[in-house]
Amino acid sequence: MTIENLGFETINLGHGSGGELTRNLLDKIIFKTFSNPFLDKKDDGAIVNFNGEIAISTDSFVITPIFFKGGNIGSLAVHGTVNDVAMCGAIPKYLSLAFIIEEGLKVSDFIKIVKDIKKAADESGVLIITGDTKVVERGKGDQIFINTTGFGEMHPKANISVDNIKEGDKILVNGNIAQHGMAIMSDREGLEFESTIESDSTNLNHLTKELLDAFGAKIKMFRDPTRGGLGTVLHEIANDINKGVAIKEADIPLQKQVAAACEMLGLDPMYVANEGVFIVVVDPSIETEVLTLMQKHDKGENATCIGLFTQEHPNKVVMESLIGGKRIVSPLVGEQLPRIC
Amino acid sequence: MTIENLGFETINLGHGSGGELTRNLLDKIIFKTFSNPFLDKKDDGAIVNFNGEIAISTDSFVITPIFFKGGNIGSLAVHGTVNDVAMCGAIPKYLSLAFIIEEGLKVSDFIKIVKDIKKAADESGVLIITGDTKVVERGKGDQIFINTTGFGEMHPKANISVDNIKEGDKILVNGNIAQHGMAIMSDREGLEFESTIESDSTNLNHLTKELLDAFGAKIKMFRDPTRGGLGTVLHEIANDINKGVAIKEADIPLQKQVAAACEMLGLDPMYVANEGVFIVVVDPSIETEVLTLMQKHDKGENATCIGLFTQEHPNKVVMESLIGGKRIVSPLVGEQLPRIC
Repeated sequence: MTIENLGFETINLGHGSGGELTRNLLDKIIFKTFSNPFLDKKDDGAIVNFNGEIAISTDSFVITPIFFKGGNIGSLAVHGTVNDVAMCGAIPKYLSLAFIIEEGLKVSDFIKIVKDIKKAADESGVLIITGDTKVVERGKGDQIFINTTGFGEMHPKANISVDNIKEGDKILVNGNIAQHGMAIMSDREGLEFESTIESDSTNLNHLTKELLDAFGAKIKMFRDPTRGGLGTVLHEIANDINKGVAIKEADIPLQKQVAAACEMLGLDPMYVANEGVFIVVVDPSIETEVLTLMQKHDKGENATCIGLFTQEHPNKVVMESLIGGKRIVSPLVGEQLPRIC
Repeated sequence: MTIENLGFETINLGHGSGGELTRNLLDKIIFKTFSNPFLDKKDDGAIVNFNGEIAISTDSFVITPIFFKGGNIGSLAVHGTVNDVAMCGAIPKYLSLAFIIEEGLKVSDFIKIVKDIKKAADESGVLIITGDTKVVERGKGDQIFINTTGFGEMHPKANISVDNIKEGDKILVNGNIAQHGMAIMSDREGLEFESTIESDSTNLNHLTKELLDAFGAKIKMFRDPTRGGLGTVLHEIANDINKGVAIKEADIPLQKQVAAACEMLGLDPMYVANEGVFIVVVDPSIETEVLTLMQKHDKGENATCIGLFTQEHPNKVVMESLIGGKRIVSPLVGEQLPRIC
């Protein structure tokens, strides 16, 4: 894809006016990049066909820095919403895309972001069908914020609900935790680690679809521990269903360099944000089969069982530590890493 | 609706962390205000049922000031997206709602906005079914930005398409133009007019539905001239279908005080943003009937015919001025009023 010389190097307020400059920016970058029958109509809205249940999810992305190891705000904005739709047990099909740009954003940066949105959307198998572009004055935003709203058809075999979770059900994760948050920390000013930690930001929808294809209603829950991390999400689930969660620290997949970076900064990896991690709750009878399927998939190579649901300590997440002691994993209070997604 | 004492007076970064503070903010304000079966599940996404064609539209709202005469950023965020869905010929049903809040926003202001979102959603007959809340540091946003994405079922009788427009088709508007833009200007620092111009921000979906109920496929197009104003929108349509638009300045409904304010500031009301105005394109045979219906509706009391499509000057909008001369209405270039929506 080539984008012609635009004749301007930064985005200015006029590009958000709704007039000729807006049309120019959209025609030369947005419509050209994402061209598809829905978007090509250039209407205020898109018209699509759906029959039955659809899952809808929205997220605004305000991550800083906008470019980081393993991705940028554009690819993240696709992955985040695609994954939220997938976690509902749906097959993501369409995204809306809305930019809030701070005056002065380099056009070359905008194009880089737009190209990565396209790449991530293609990899996820979703189309950008409608959008919006606003520009705010310098100092009233922070380079670029992106909202995506995603729509997906429910997988015909899905029956995902916390209400299906029983005592003894196993909790699996697809891979190493805490990478996204630590990648962002390492990219932020003054915090450069010698090691190169990459964000795990990726689309999980193909793997969740394969799991539903194979195991249908035996999959009781998907959940991606983004903001707040694994600890907060497990705590939320335990509370929602009035059951306990028992996990073992030794079973939680964690890269050595990520663990080291967390220790150095005094952060608990259980609360660090992920963008390519999800948990799957299954009946214990299919644990091995599910893990085998996941481990064969490129988004689940490090899949493992981290624990189970129990009636022993309702509403509490209890972790057996590496040295055998037990501690309660409370939810994250306050802010650990601001603007992580 | 009462919202209990929250124990904090401003929004801080922790409210965007995804942890306990986020949950607290959502439980006490968002879930309480918008409670409905979709949202009450508190999942990352909502699951809804649709059968057939649905219209989807997204908009991010960055208006400043966030409170203005005739509305605020919350009511506007509902009206803007509800109207975009309605303009597709659809019946809006659901909205997603995503906040980007600047640290330090007064909780009382946030509650005021949330309450007006609820009120506008109720009046429009739409449910808030999923959402997101992010917080950015002071100086990295501007109080609050709101994204809404709307979903509506296509009206069974709708057959809206610019391709249906023929020479001679009439262009009607539902009411006075340029009020929203001038209300914002009058509210902005240093620009207080003696007169009180109110934004026209409102939901148009009930009127568009009545029009489709009554006239079905004879309605060829709806379009709301928001950013860029009536002039830009007419120019876009003329260009899209390679036809001319002939309008008469004398027929364009415009409040006297709005006209005076525009003149004082050197602004052309044809380019000033509207939020409660729409144009309807119809076969000339039903012009009178359509106007009669519109004028009986509280959102169309000042409805009038402003012109027609012609082959005489393709791609051009030509306006006959009050004194009889003719001028070409070109599209808005650059920025007239930044951050008007």
